[in-house]
Amino acid sequence: MADNKKMVEAITSRDEDFAKWYTDIVKKAELVDYSSVKGCMVFRPYGYAIWENIQADMDRRFKETGVENVYMPMFIPESLLQKEKDHVEGFAPECAWVTIGGQEKLNERLCVRPTSETLFCEHYKKVIETYRDLPKLYNQWCSVVRWEKTTRPFLRNSEFLWQEGHTMHETAEEAQEETLRMLKVYEDFYRDTLAIPAVVGKKTEKEKFAGAEATYTIEPMMHNGVALQGGTSHYFGDGFAKNFDIKFQGRDNKLHYPHQTSWGASTRMIGAIIMVHGDDDGLILPPKVSPVQVAIIPIAMHKKGVLEKAGELKERLQKQFRVKLDDSDHAPGWKFSEYEMKGVPVRVEIGPKDIENGQCVIVRRDTREKIFTPLENLEETVKKTLEEIHNDMYDRALKNMQEKTHVATTYEQFVELGKEQGGFIKAMWCGDSECEEKLKEVTGGVKSRCIPFEEEHLADTCVCCQKKAKHMVYWGKQY
Amino acid sequence: MADNKKMVEAITSRDEDFAKWYTDIVKKAELVDYSSVKGCMVFRPYGYAIWENIQADMDRRFKETGVENVYMPMFIPESLLQKEKDHVEGFAPECAWVTIGGQEKLNERLCVRPTSETLFCEHYKKVIETYRDLPKLYNQWCSVVRWEKTTRPFLRNSEFLWQEGHTMHETAEEAQEETLRMLKVYEDFYRDTLAIPAVVGKKTEKEKFAGAEATYTIEPMMHNGVALQGGTSHYFGDGFAKNFDIKFQGRDNKLHYPHQTSWGASTRMIGAIIMVHGDDDGLILPPKVSPVQVAIIPIAMHKKGVLEKAGELKERLQKQFRVKLDDSDHAPGWKFSEYEMKGVPVRVEIGPKDIENGQCVIVRRDTREKIFTPLENLEETVKKTLEEIHNDMYDRALKNMQEKTHVATTYEQFVELGKEQGGFIKAMWCGDSECEEKLKEVTGGVKSRCIPFEEEHLADTCVCCQKKAKHMVYWGKQY
Repeated sequence: MADNKKMVEAITSRDEDFAKWYTDIVKKAELVDYSSVKGCMVFRPYGYAIWENIQADMDRRFKETGVENVYMPMFIPESLLQKEKDHVEGFAPECAWVTIGGQEKLNERLCVRPTSETLFCEHYKKVIETYRDLPKLYNQWCSVVRWEKTTRPFLRNSEFLWQEGHTMHETAEEAQEETLRMLKVYEDFYRDTLAIPAVVGKKTEKEKFAGAEATYTIEPMMHNGVALQGGTSHYFGDGFAKNFDIKFQGRDNKLHYPHQTSWGASTRMIGAIIMVHGDDDGLILPPKVSPVQVAIIPIAMHKKGVLEKAGELKERLQKQFRVKLDDSDHAPGWKFSEYEMKGVPVRVEIGPKDIENGQCVIVRRDTREKIFTPLENLEETVKKTLEEIHNDMYDRALKNMQEKTHVATTYEQFVELGKEQGGFIKAMWCGDSECEEKLKEVTGGVKSRCIPFEEEHLADTCVCCQKKAKHMVYWGKQY
Repeated sequence: MADNKKMVEAITSRDEDFAKWYTDIVKKAELVDYSSVKGCMVFRPYGYAIWENIQADMDRRFKETGVENVYMPMFIPESLLQKEKDHVEGFAPECAWVTIGGQEKLNERLCVRPTSETLFCEHYKKVIETYRDLPKLYNQWCSVVRWEKTTRPFLRNSEFLWQEGHTMHETAEEAQEETLRMLKVYEDFYRDTLAIPAVVGKKTEKEKFAGAEATYTIEPMMHNGVALQGGTSHYFGDGFAKNFDIKFQGRDNKLHYPHQTSWGASTRMIGAIIMVHGDDDGLILPPKVSPVQVAIIPIAMHKKGVLEKAGELKERLQKQFRVKLDDSDHAPGWKFSEYEMKGVPVRVEIGPKDIENGQCVIVRRDTREKIFTPLENLEETVKKTLEEIHNDMYDRALKNMQEKTHVATTYEQFVELGKEQGGFIKAMWCGDSECEEKLKEVTGGVKSRCIPFEEEHLADTCVCCQKKAKHMVYWGKQY
């Protein structure tokens, strides 16, 4: 117990200092390490294993919709990046530039990709000739670089891992459908795999992606009420196609520009997992992406038969689950807090008395509930428990989001909520980006999150300027 | 047939112009596209799918030996790269340097990783404290950059994809065992997954990796007799550990330096697949990594029942195999040559007559053998056929390697074989790198491939200088 207490005390309390609590977890759960390049992280085995599970799940969902994986070069020549005006304006300030290669100064400097629209367009120009070549549904898993001034593990890094899908379609309608289809894939993934609820909708003009006609977003709320842009899906129309001169022969035998989308989600999702689910004892991982789903801790390990029985349970359970049997020298109390810190959903304790009684103890990470379980039904109980943990994690996160979502119908209400309460604010908006700027300024950072697909009518006028309202918008501060 | 012939004619013959035949396949099988950055390729869906299958298979083999995946930053500060003298000398000439980040000139320029020993060492210094922290068995899948003057798809690229394992051990013996263990993993993978035989052994001092104490290599032979360095495994001793000041408290309570290995294999393996197995009709893919293992081609598709039956077969086969049913408008002849070009191991033809007879036709890509198969046993026959294809591909490659491996006991023999015959030369060597230089020069590029683990005694003296021989060496030209 001394051990146990010691580890728990080593973390800052979530309600005391959310930012410090977050970095404590990142470090103590051994997710990442810092490197000597500012803002570039080392993904340690436990952190990377979470990402591998995220990748496998998302990749399957993408491929089920017909998406194929490719890999584009990591370098973009400056002239290529400049082909789309809004795009280059959006990204140039954050670019890292290669100017020397093989000891010689390059004739044209190369940007380390911050995103790959331009590279995909260059390739699409070569492989799209007729409508028979459409749609093209490509995705890549890679790292991208955006030179950030202030960085924070998973949330804002100079280099981060992500997936970026880039698709080309015969018609605007098909491209728009694809944009929303992939937003839905993100929404399903967050709910069914990460146990994270979110608000989804369309970004305002001000907040949309550089070069896009429309940007859609999924915005989960962290435990402290701050939003995280969790994934975006963009509809480009034929703007890039025109700039890159991509044309296809249509069914009418005439030349047309294809319509384009892109969509991306990154290792920020691990940040979301930490901040939505974690507590004062560390991570609480959604069972579906947890590198270890069941940690088996033998009690009184030296006693005859305990290790053998623990080994038996491992053999049985690992047929269905990701299992770790910890037979190290550490005391059980140390192990308890270790796997709590690492957010392992289910702990199985087995000691001499349990063996005598033909049972073991299952302990849920999220609720600490102890379940005495007959050994013969163990697989079933673990399966059921993991499902319950997932559902309860989702419900708790949803409750938090609902409790921290407020309605503002007046300017004063909005400012007070924005300054004092945090969380999401639902409020009417005239459609003018000047109002967005003003609200951001007076609240110290509250921005429009999105216009949801189903808007409520909260009032007739804009919460800021009192002109006629066009949309109901979710607002909030963000990471 | 006209269609079929047309496509086949479009490829250069392998025996006529091996280099052009290679690039023809790379292009026509839609493996890669060129990008606007010299030497950086676009991996198209079919090429990338081969890599995904390679990755999944190797990754499983690595993890079975206890290896964990991590991800290191892509940038290495110049001062970090310089910590190991031999290492920086080996790689500095090929580095791409980032000098500007976020519109500002960097204080210290950053190398885009050509390999990551230095980054792993920086991290290991922080996480290794006692012998209990050892071994550390880390691997990463990433891209690396080496600024090459002349490039060729898959074989020599400015950016390429690979895996790099980096491990730390308590003793020299353990590290040496690990070095050979991973070489064995590569050997098994080449044989059992890629159907490629190879010579394995130790590199000479001259050919070893920059900073290593010993480098081991797997050297498959391409169809034209030229070698490809297919994967390397390095033993570093404690050299890096000393330069990076990595120490651990040993079982004797004293501080020790850990012993290190690294091992890597890259997308060159796809080049090896092409050049070992391909023929004048295109790729021949090893069944285990082929993105499509079975292509189903309906014959007389418009006739009643054909498409339905083809669809049924697809449903059945895709439970066990990666299957594509091609029901496009193209003529069957076009489809035949298309899937031949793409190297799909097994083609299943099904037409009205076959359906009447309760059969289909299986055609092997490698031998063109046609096998009339009752529909009820189809899964079994396909399974058996894929296994036979794998084994026969391996046997043919082995026969080619054996036929193109010669013995030289005199200098004149060596020079003649090296200049005229190509292939591997087995010859005795004194251990002096001056002899290696001389043999390379007089033969126009024949270099030592490796010292095999089991050396034959071919003569008493070095084939070059006639001094006392120390080793039997495999020699040959390389990609």
